[in-house]
Amino acid sequence: MNKLKLGRNAVMAIILIIGLLIGLVGCNAKTPTNTTNQAAAGTPAAWVAPGQLDTHYMFASGGQSGNLIVWGIPSMRILRQIPVYNVYAPTGFGFTPETKKMLGDKTWGDVHHPIASQTQGAYDGKFIWVNDKANSRVAQVDLNRFETTQILDIPNMVGFHCLTTDPESKYLFCATEFSLPIAEGQKNAYAPLQNYTGEYYGIITALKTNRDKVQPGQPGQVSISYQLLAPPYEYDISSAGKGAADGLVFFTNYNSEMATSDIEKNSTTLPLDLTLVVDYNAAQKLADAGTYDQVVNGVKIIDPRKHPGIAYLLPIAKNPHGVDVSPDGKWIVYSSKLDPVVTIISTEKLKKAIASKNFEKTTWGLPVLKEADLQEAQIQVGVGPLHTQFDDQGYAYTSLFVESAVTKWQLGSWKVIDKQPVNYNVGHVAVPGGDSMKPFGHWLVALNKASLKRFLPVGPSYPVSEQLFDISGSSKMTLVNETPSEREPHYASIFPANLIKPISVYPKDESRPNSIWSEDKAKIVRNGNQVTVYMLTIRSHFKPDTIEVNQGDHVTIYLTNIEQQPGMTHGIGMSGYNINVPADPGQTVQVDFTADKPGTFPFYCTNFCSAMHEEMAGYFLVKPKS
Amino acid sequence: MNKLKLGRNAVMAIILIIGLLIGLVGCNAKTPTNTTNQAAAGTPAAWVAPGQLDTHYMFASGGQSGNLIVWGIPSMRILRQIPVYNVYAPTGFGFTPETKKMLGDKTWGDVHHPIASQTQGAYDGKFIWVNDKANSRVAQVDLNRFETTQILDIPNMVGFHCLTTDPESKYLFCATEFSLPIAEGQKNAYAPLQNYTGEYYGIITALKTNRDKVQPGQPGQVSISYQLLAPPYEYDISSAGKGAADGLVFFTNYNSEMATSDIEKNSTTLPLDLTLVVDYNAAQKLADAGTYDQVVNGVKIIDPRKHPGIAYLLPIAKNPHGVDVSPDGKWIVYSSKLDPVVTIISTEKLKKAIASKNFEKTTWGLPVLKEADLQEAQIQVGVGPLHTQFDDQGYAYTSLFVESAVTKWQLGSWKVIDKQPVNYNVGHVAVPGGDSMKPFGHWLVALNKASLKRFLPVGPSYPVSEQLFDISGSSKMTLVNETPSEREPHYASIFPANLIKPISVYPKDESRPNSIWSEDKAKIVRNGNQVTVYMLTIRSHFKPDTIEVNQGDHVTIYLTNIEQQPGMTHGIGMSGYNINVPADPGQTVQVDFTADKPGTFPFYCTNFCSAMHEEMAGYFLVKPKS
Repeated sequence: MNKLKLGRNAVMAIILIIGLLIGLVGCNAKTPTNTTNQAAAGTPAAWVAPGQLDTHYMFASGGQSGNLIVWGIPSMRILRQIPVYNVYAPTGFGFTPETKKMLGDKTWGDVHHPIASQTQGAYDGKFIWVNDKANSRVAQVDLNRFETTQILDIPNMVGFHCLTTDPESKYLFCATEFSLPIAEGQKNAYAPLQNYTGEYYGIITALKTNRDKVQPGQPGQVSISYQLLAPPYEYDISSAGKGAADGLVFFTNYNSEMATSDIEKNSTTLPLDLTLVVDYNAAQKLADAGTYDQVVNGVKIIDPRKHPGIAYLLPIAKNPHGVDVSPDGKWIVYSSKLDPVVTIISTEKLKKAIASKNFEKTTWGLPVLKEADLQEAQIQVGVGPLHTQFDDQGYAYTSLFVESAVTKWQLGSWKVIDKQPVNYNVGHVAVPGGDSMKPFGHWLVALNKASLKRFLPVGPSYPVSEQLFDISGSSKMTLVNETPSEREPHYASIFPANLIKPISVYPKDESRPNSIWSEDKAKIVRNGNQVTVYMLTIRSHFKPDTIEVNQGDHVTIYLTNIEQQPGMTHGIGMSGYNINVPADPGQTVQVDFTADKPGTFPFYCTNFCSAMHEEMAGYFLVKPKS
Repeated sequence: MNKLKLGRNAVMAIILIIGLLIGLVGCNAKTPTNTTNQAAAGTPAAWVAPGQLDTHYMFASGGQSGNLIVWGIPSMRILRQIPVYNVYAPTGFGFTPETKKMLGDKTWGDVHHPIASQTQGAYDGKFIWVNDKANSRVAQVDLNRFETTQILDIPNMVGFHCLTTDPESKYLFCATEFSLPIAEGQKNAYAPLQNYTGEYYGIITALKTNRDKVQPGQPGQVSISYQLLAPPYEYDISSAGKGAADGLVFFTNYNSEMATSDIEKNSTTLPLDLTLVVDYNAAQKLADAGTYDQVVNGVKIIDPRKHPGIAYLLPIAKNPHGVDVSPDGKWIVYSSKLDPVVTIISTEKLKKAIASKNFEKTTWGLPVLKEADLQEAQIQVGVGPLHTQFDDQGYAYTSLFVESAVTKWQLGSWKVIDKQPVNYNVGHVAVPGGDSMKPFGHWLVALNKASLKRFLPVGPSYPVSEQLFDISGSSKMTLVNETPSEREPHYASIFPANLIKPISVYPKDESRPNSIWSEDKAKIVRNGNQVTVYMLTIRSHFKPDTIEVNQGDHVTIYLTNIEQQPGMTHGIGMSGYNINVPADPGQTVQVDFTADKPGTFPFYCTNFCSAMHEEMAGYFLVKPKS
């Protein structure tokens, strides 16, 4: 082991330097050669001519935009922006009572790690769950409507990097990237930093999706099942087991050193980090049995140090980022950010070691497994491995951040098959179904963190890039397309097009509360100072189109778009009261406000609908009090 | 004339019906044939292989998204989103003191009509001005930084559709789409709708750009010069004259009928609408001489009825939308939405008629010109003409909304050369420099309002589409690419790439107030309960990375990114205090807040920067009062 460690340390020193120079390494040296290679390769495979359709959907995180971005593959065109954590007027998100309530007082979210719902371990095209890394929220996106139907704020944790789900998507798991003290009644408790090791905790949260209780388009029912205390390390990726590894969930982390400042340096002193392995069935049993150690902010918290058989620590080479489970669950692949290897852990050996309690020692009150006993292989993939995806042919694909490349290698033989450059600094990679038990293969998207000289200049704020590779061959990967992208496209779920079956219009439903479907039903009802407007819209007018109220009245508008023509969206935009709410065909939307400002407020259709669209306007008048 | 009018009325009836059926006409009938034609034509001309650059920039309105969207042509990829009227975390827009102030309390804008700055009548690549149709604001976007540097709220008007500028971009002109009463101290004054014709006014606003006073990246200096009272019609497009028409500005409108309800029907009863022509030099002279009739909300208002020689009414066939001036200024092209013709007005005849006071009558106190005397030609372009652009070969291109097509015709001969279908329902069209004295030609983008069956389904909220045509040939236009787009891409300015020269990093400027450039200058300064943090960032840490304050302190962070490597953006994201501010290379940004919540608040780098990016984090601690 010593020899190996020394070797590692040498490599690490080099890598750190390279890491700090990546801008130069990645952005200058590589440009000419790659450009030439790729231009030739690009043309045929990715061109989608006008009138032709893409073959795949990609749902990628929109980073700080707060949106989930729907891309077409192979065209790499943006098909749709789905607002999740931001006010977004084009779909009225943050303007209706229910979406205002979902967003609360926050004006941004860091949409980080989308995860696709699965049935029997395969993508089922029903839901995407995505986290807000910054504010510790989980959202459910309904793929029947392409809309966000729930945002859940998770107590006792601030900032988590990732989400993962089991093969039936019964649960979601996540872990804190930033350790904090926990205290009743506070999202951010206070304790001096010098008390870090004693008073700060990592938190693992297990969520129940309750997906069986949800009808298409109805509010999500994701709820918190329990939380586990964990050592105050910084947790990154989590991957739930499947197949042979079903029932376990794996976490990576950096900063086993528990540094609280100069983390860039102080979290890289140990050759191995202690990663967490959790038996979630065992933990769930305790929670269901009402066995837990405290309740903080309404959440049952279990201290795994007091309940053997729930959590184990597994030493993995330096600052590992990705942990990825092979489709059959036999292999757990750890990507060590500061070590040029991926480490393959055998699930069989792992389960044996756990069963036989074959532990090296105890750290932070948790048993530490012996990595050497569990390791099946270690593959020299290249510099700065981050994340691995799988295809349907028994191959794996590991992103190399520092080296700006993707390495293709083979499961079982552990042989490296191919390596292709990316531009530049790839974080995660995504393959259709590549994190499930049934990968579809064919495409790989490299979600890169830099794009220098790849696109026309747009000022000091550079786009990043997404590059599409054809991986259908048995050996070489071929770059076929690329696009600039909003920072930062952390991760994505890719589906064959036929798996996604959204509705095209909201069905006409005369029993829907507050909806009206014929002009004779349009009315303005006053009840004290509550004025309720039952309005409909059809090409190209609002009915009623004149509303007069008194200053101080509370106004509720129920707007029904009675069109059943797909795409024939109308919308009401009104200056002065900050109102912008579109109504898609067959949809009823609600607008709610207090008419506290007197005056004349024209409203207009915000969605071009016919030759008479511009004439589609009306007046909202507020009679002054005096 | 009678015969002509009868003919028109017949056509109009048909058009109205077609207009109401466009969904069907546009979206079903046409799909198969177009798709086939276009697939074949598409491949070669528009493909931009990985590593290759686009040849043109397109700055298109992002509609309700509130962003100006920068597209690459011919790839039709989004290169960048420039936030204008919305909070946008990826660039920190709405999170710094100055951008918070720019946005005020509004959470949306309808980015409608971008207009490019010109010098000697040609695009100069310095600025884009764009209006917020909903809230009557004008913004200046700096193309040296690709950022919004001013938002100006215009009093006495609510909702305007369009902006236009003169050949030296000394002025901007706009007109109200929605007429309103005006009153001191109010943005939306009140008057009963039955007093519409007497108490409601259209307003024409003339703005001075003061562009010569603005350094790159510095706040815009756009100011209001004066306003003109106008008849209470609904104004659409405005186009400033150039060349032979220099000094005049032309407006279109619907609703000369002055209807206030059922506008869809009631604004289409007259065969001709009365459009406005303004001599802006004459009006400016009055304003400069202090000759005006009232000052309302700080703006000089001139009543053109009291000052002959400023404004004229020009009858144009039914509900005209576009008015476009040929590059040489000799021809004014009116597109009549509800009449299958464009009407060509001769500038020479117009100026003669004005000089000789050859008027038909007076309406709303303004002289009405005789359309028949001024008309040079009327071209049967097709059903539902909306807008016309010009190329560098003497051709014009008119969009046909109802017919879903673009017609190419020739200036001078007035012959129709070609017509190509679009998918579907095109609003405006954009040609590089196509609204200036120096069009570049080559490409035409159709900004379509519908896209049914063109892209993978994305739920009830459909994208619209943008289609790229190669117009470099002397006869046929060829569709070569298309993309879905956010509603609604009203209009765009297209530039050859070499005209846009943004900076790639902010220069290192040690004299910049509050910036620091070396770690030894990093400090936390307390002055009473004001805590000021002078922070820097470089791969991959913040200095300082631990900040402890007392509950109630006011905190100002000046963050300088001392990198000079293009693309090496860092950013500070902090949960709990809703902070997300990126700092591009060489930039100093400010964060300002009151630490009213006690606790521990981790902050982290929001822009992936190196292998150690994730380790780039710190702690902000707020010591509880008690």
